[in-house]
Amino acid sequence: MQLGMIGLGRMGANIVRRLMRAGHNCVVFDRDPAAGAALAREGAQAATSVADLVQKLSAPRAVWIMVPAGDATESTVRELAAILQSGDTIIDGGNSFWKDDVRRAAELKPEGLHYVDAGTSGGVWGLERGYCLMLGGDKAAIDRLDPIFHALAPGRGDIPETPGREGRDPRVERGYLHAGPNGAGHYVKMIHNGIEYGMMQAMAEGFDILKHANSPKLAPELRLDLDVADIAEVWRRGSVVTSWLLDLTATALAQDPQLASYSGHVDDSGEGRWTVQAAIEQAVPAEVLTSSLYTRFRSRVDHTFAEKVLSAMRKGFGGHVEPKASK
Amino acid sequence: MQLGMIGLGRMGANIVRRLMRAGHNCVVFDRDPAAGAALAREGAQAATSVADLVQKLSAPRAVWIMVPAGDATESTVRELAAILQSGDTIIDGGNSFWKDDVRRAAELKPEGLHYVDAGTSGGVWGLERGYCLMLGGDKAAIDRLDPIFHALAPGRGDIPETPGREGRDPRVERGYLHAGPNGAGHYVKMIHNGIEYGMMQAMAEGFDILKHANSPKLAPELRLDLDVADIAEVWRRGSVVTSWLLDLTATALAQDPQLASYSGHVDDSGEGRWTVQAAIEQAVPAEVLTSSLYTRFRSRVDHTFAEKVLSAMRKGFGGHVEPKASK
Amino acid sequence: MQLGMIGLGRMGANIVRRLMRAGHNCVVFDRDPAAGAALAREGAQAATSVADLVQKLSAPRAVWIMVPAGDATESTVRELAAILQSGDTIIDGGNSFWKDDVRRAAELKPEGLHYVDAGTSGGVWGLERGYCLMLGGDKAAIDRLDPIFHALAPGRGDIPETPGREGRDPRVERGYLHAGPNGAGHYVKMIHNGIEYGMMQAMAEGFDILKHANSPKLAPELRLDLDVADIAEVWRRGSVVTSWLLDLTATALAQDPQLASYSGHVDDSGEGRWTVQAAIEQAVPAEVLTSSLYTRFRSRVDHTFAEKVLSAMRKGFGGHVEPKASK
Amino acid sequence: MQLGMIGLGRMGANIVRRLMRAGHNCVVFDRDPAAGAALAREGAQAATSVADLVQKLSAPRAVWIMVPAGDATESTVRELAAILQSGDTIIDGGNSFWKDDVRRAAELKPEGLHYVDAGTSGGVWGLERGYCLMLGGDKAAIDRLDPIFHALAPGRGDIPETPGREGRDPRVERGYLHAGPNGAGHYVKMIHNGIEYGMMQAMAEGFDILKHANSPKLAPELRLDLDVADIAEVWRRGSVVTSWLLDLTATALAQDPQLASYSGHVDDSGEGRWTVQAAIEQAVPAEVLTSSLYTRFRSRVDHTFAEKVLSAMRKGFGGHVEPKASK
Repeated sequence: MQLGMIGLGRMGANIVRRLMRAGHNCVVFDRDPAAGAALAREGAQAATSVADLVQKLSAPRAVWIMVPAGDATESTVRELAAILQSGDTIIDGGNSFWKDDVRRAAELKPEGLHYVDAGTSGGVWGLERGYCLMLGGDKAAIDRLDPIFHALAPGRGDIPETPGREGRDPRVERGYLHAGPNGAGHYVKMIHNGIEYGMMQAMAEGFDILKHANSPKLAPELRLDLDVADIAEVWRRGSVVTSWLLDLTATALAQDPQLASYSGHVDDSGEGRWTVQAAIEQAVPAEVLTSSLYTRFRSRVDHTFAEKVLSAMRKGFGGHVEPKASK
Repeated sequence: MQLGMIGLGRMGANIVRRLMRAGHNCVVFDRDPAAGAALAREGAQAATSVADLVQKLSAPRAVWIMVPAGDATESTVRELAAILQSGDTIIDGGNSFWKDDVRRAAELKPEGLHYVDAGTSGGVWGLERGYCLMLGGDKAAIDRLDPIFHALAPGRGDIPETPGREGRDPRVERGYLHAGPNGAGHYVKMIHNGIEYGMMQAMAEGFDILKHANSPKLAPELRLDLDVADIAEVWRRGSVVTSWLLDLTATALAQDPQLASYSGHVDDSGEGRWTVQAAIEQAVPAEVLTSSLYTRFRSRVDHTFAEKVLSAMRKGFGGHVEPKASK
Repeated sequence: MQLGMIGLGRMGANIVRRLMRAGHNCVVFDRDPAAGAALAREGAQAATSVADLVQKLSAPRAVWIMVPAGDATESTVRELAAILQSGDTIIDGGNSFWKDDVRRAAELKPEGLHYVDAGTSGGVWGLERGYCLMLGGDKAAIDRLDPIFHALAPGRGDIPETPGREGRDPRVERGYLHAGPNGAGHYVKMIHNGIEYGMMQAMAEGFDILKHANSPKLAPELRLDLDVADIAEVWRRGSVVTSWLLDLTATALAQDPQLASYSGHVDDSGEGRWTVQAAIEQAVPAEVLTSSLYTRFRSRVDHTFAEKVLSAMRKGFGGHVEPKASK
Repeated sequence: MQLGMIGLGRMGANIVRRLMRAGHNCVVFDRDPAAGAALAREGAQAATSVADLVQKLSAPRAVWIMVPAGDATESTVRELAAILQSGDTIIDGGNSFWKDDVRRAAELKPEGLHYVDAGTSGGVWGLERGYCLMLGGDKAAIDRLDPIFHALAPGRGDIPETPGREGRDPRVERGYLHAGPNGAGHYVKMIHNGIEYGMMQAMAEGFDILKHANSPKLAPELRLDLDVADIAEVWRRGSVVTSWLLDLTATALAQDPQLASYSGHVDDSGEGRWTVQAAIEQAVPAEVLTSSLYTRFRSRVDHTFAEKVLSAMRKGFGGHVEPKASK
């Protein structure tokens, strides 16, 4: 099958590669011509512009957008919408806000254009392991593009079957899901990332407490020197916290148990924030997912103004003068 | 090798079974004679009392205690300590508080008795999958009992190796870890469970938000009917949140996406509380692990007094009268 | 001075009363004619419609809207905008979302209409104590209406002066603040309510722990029967937590230390949610304000789906069957 | 009445002063002779040692200990216990852990010694405003020392009466409370401080969001330059968050709205930690009180190990490299 890909960063390029390995044809475009040229050497057809890419595709066309969420995606959708034809499909594989998907799909529908929001998990490992796909859109479009999604998804592999799934949609076991109408794909991906934040934070806090088991704040007879790398490793074997995130932690700690190369500054992308927003709109308490987000906010500043307000109050009622030194 | 086992509940009995499958000999005792008799039919030697169990073992003896943490474990340790001989070893495989281990080991040492605190993860699946073991105690005792731990642990299986572990203790890859001196085993298990609470809560909150994506609180065009069973399943394939806890969630949701058979009342065992205590002693922030615990506390009451205080204040300043109805 | 008031609920009617006490003239309207008639008996001029109210006012007119935030306020602003004249002013005294103020003011400006967003705190006590006013809008409009705001605000009273405020805007000490351009008034009120949620929750949690100091979960020699009413009262005298919220708590507990008449169901208005949204937009961690909101969400359901997911996982890995009974 | 005071720091010295102003006689001791000499110049009788202080008091003696909680208090209690006589009373006015009070009182009882745990709030303002006292101990001892507590407490002042308190203990309105048996005084003080942490954090987060209302992360038309000093001031007048903590915040912000002289490093004393411990022992959720504590922990380190673990995972699955720069 034929697919156009706009945006050849790490994710976009590897998706193209995985599709080509499965025998699909890809027409590719990136603002940086070198990115297109590199994939051309691996068998893709490089386009010189969005318009050129559209021209190189046969109708009904399918164009996958893999550029940063927000303005870049929005302008690309608009540029495509102006030149695609009725029956063509735009796939947004980035991390768009799901309400933008709802709006865009409604805007494109009168033109006869299909829109698929494709939540895509897999990161740098997707090329080899496959991508977990969460799709939102109309059935016709998603069914027509099934060979693409089938090729990108990890497949059943050797993951044990879940009992009780007999008679359910077999695509799900292969790693791709038609989650619902437009917006549903990115909604499910958003919550996936929200959970990811929470699981990461749980793991991170646990290792922090392990690391401080020999804290000088503790009585000497109660201090423990623990090997966090070995602990992460042993938990990979039969424990309840077995997970891919633990595997990654074990790898990182095996290389450096101090993680000295990391500054501790932690970014967040939009999904964590939108997850909190969704929780609040539904009045669902989401303590852990929200705390995970706030930890990242806090990690990026030296001190908050809130902390200074606390110190000012403490000085006000108790005459406490906070030390300048840290730790 | 020979092992005595006191406490033949789900965990104790399955540990005995897994050991016998590996060719070890087990002398077993439970307050309920039926439990001993059942295992005797599978090849164990049933004792009629703790004293009888000790007598049936050859020196140097090893007795594994698998009874509820707290008073039951404490009294069993004391009963054993009174009749074991120098060179014998007591293994506490339950979920004891790690500071109790430190104390007990110090009390037993003058008698020449060894003590091993064995954090044991694996639950009802341990018999088949093996138990992840986190061990605290002196090297001599743990080395002598290596065949026992080796048999209980899951082994390497087909879990990919962690890069960078060359030259490290190979027992860890087999699923058992000598974590440090007494207390270290249960300390590591405690943090394991703390992380488990946090990961569970992250997963639970995410599914709650998915479930409410069609909330009547949302504008009709933004409501999504999502299939939580399919979502859990697809995430098992290549996503970042892949984990054993997700596998279990997928299984439960495949059986009943409403989880109608569950009351929502969630117990907690001591480890979650002790994890928070450890964090506070070290001055390590542990928002997520603590919130996970509080969620469980809250799940077990109809309403908190705190909520009534809030309502009383709201009525006081705003004349708000809270509705009685829920939702 | 003359003011039109639309919306004669508890807040609107008392604002009118306080203005009339200060010698101002009020033209009033409410969808319920009885509300207008009641105030007419106290000296107000009752209008039969919004149009009638506008007609009864002399240019430049000032109309205060005190109807529920959201659709009711929006439609009232639109109705007014269609019939007011250049130079007139609309004051939104409700709890509108501050971004709606920014938008509305921009929409009204081309018509020569002024818009003032007036965050109003004081609740049922405002008539006697005065209202704390946080105002957003252009200087001309706010200055022209100064007699209104001056009359509504509490005044200096016997509250001690804050040292270091010499030379600062004296209106602030009187209890009304021109916080900035449109939106600023409701923004400041929004954060006020966010803080209010957090302070209330802090108080509520503390009293919950006091109430449970005799919990059967504690060792008998460590159980304390505490008198929460007396505790609230004594803290009003010289303690660090002295506050109006504590006064209200003391009053409620003096009447009934069990607060048995309260269901524990706690509503939330928009400000708490918008405060969290503002924090997230700015990447400012706001753990306490957010937890306070989530507590209220949780108070309104019997059980969350999240809790059932937790139970399902616990059963999955440990065979735990949660009890149905509560407490 | 006569009182001995051991520990003449800010709190101890001012308590002595307030007692002397009320006509009581004080015998004082501090390890630093200069502290005793200073108070001697104001009318106190300075002792040269604990033994000397005891000798200078007439039976039945009352000795108030105002030294740091923990070892210093413990050793002073023991030193006193060895030389006091049956019928004498020790008052611990520091911030001791309430379970230590229970233990100490039980240890002293066989000697005929009374013990009063006196939670004392008022800080640097207590000399003028009076101290809010929360007392634990037996009725006889507390009644005998009533003149002392009466003199230290703020008295009714001009604080409005709480309706519904007719017939209740009038000492409470004067600002001192016999909270219950030993331990109850410090227990109530502990929860007071826990609430204080939560109220402070609520206030601090709110001002942080106000401060960032002009964040460059926001769209230019939605940025607000707010005057936090004026906002704090206006809220003192009729708003729901009126409180002493707000008064202190307003004072600090009037002096410097940037609070530039504060590092943002915030200490915590034991009460916040013990409050969390009490909540956990009772299984009472205390999200806000706990988060307030964790914020302080976080304020005292440059980065947590947890944050580095997060970065390591992010690099592992997504190839994300976190920037070194802050903000």
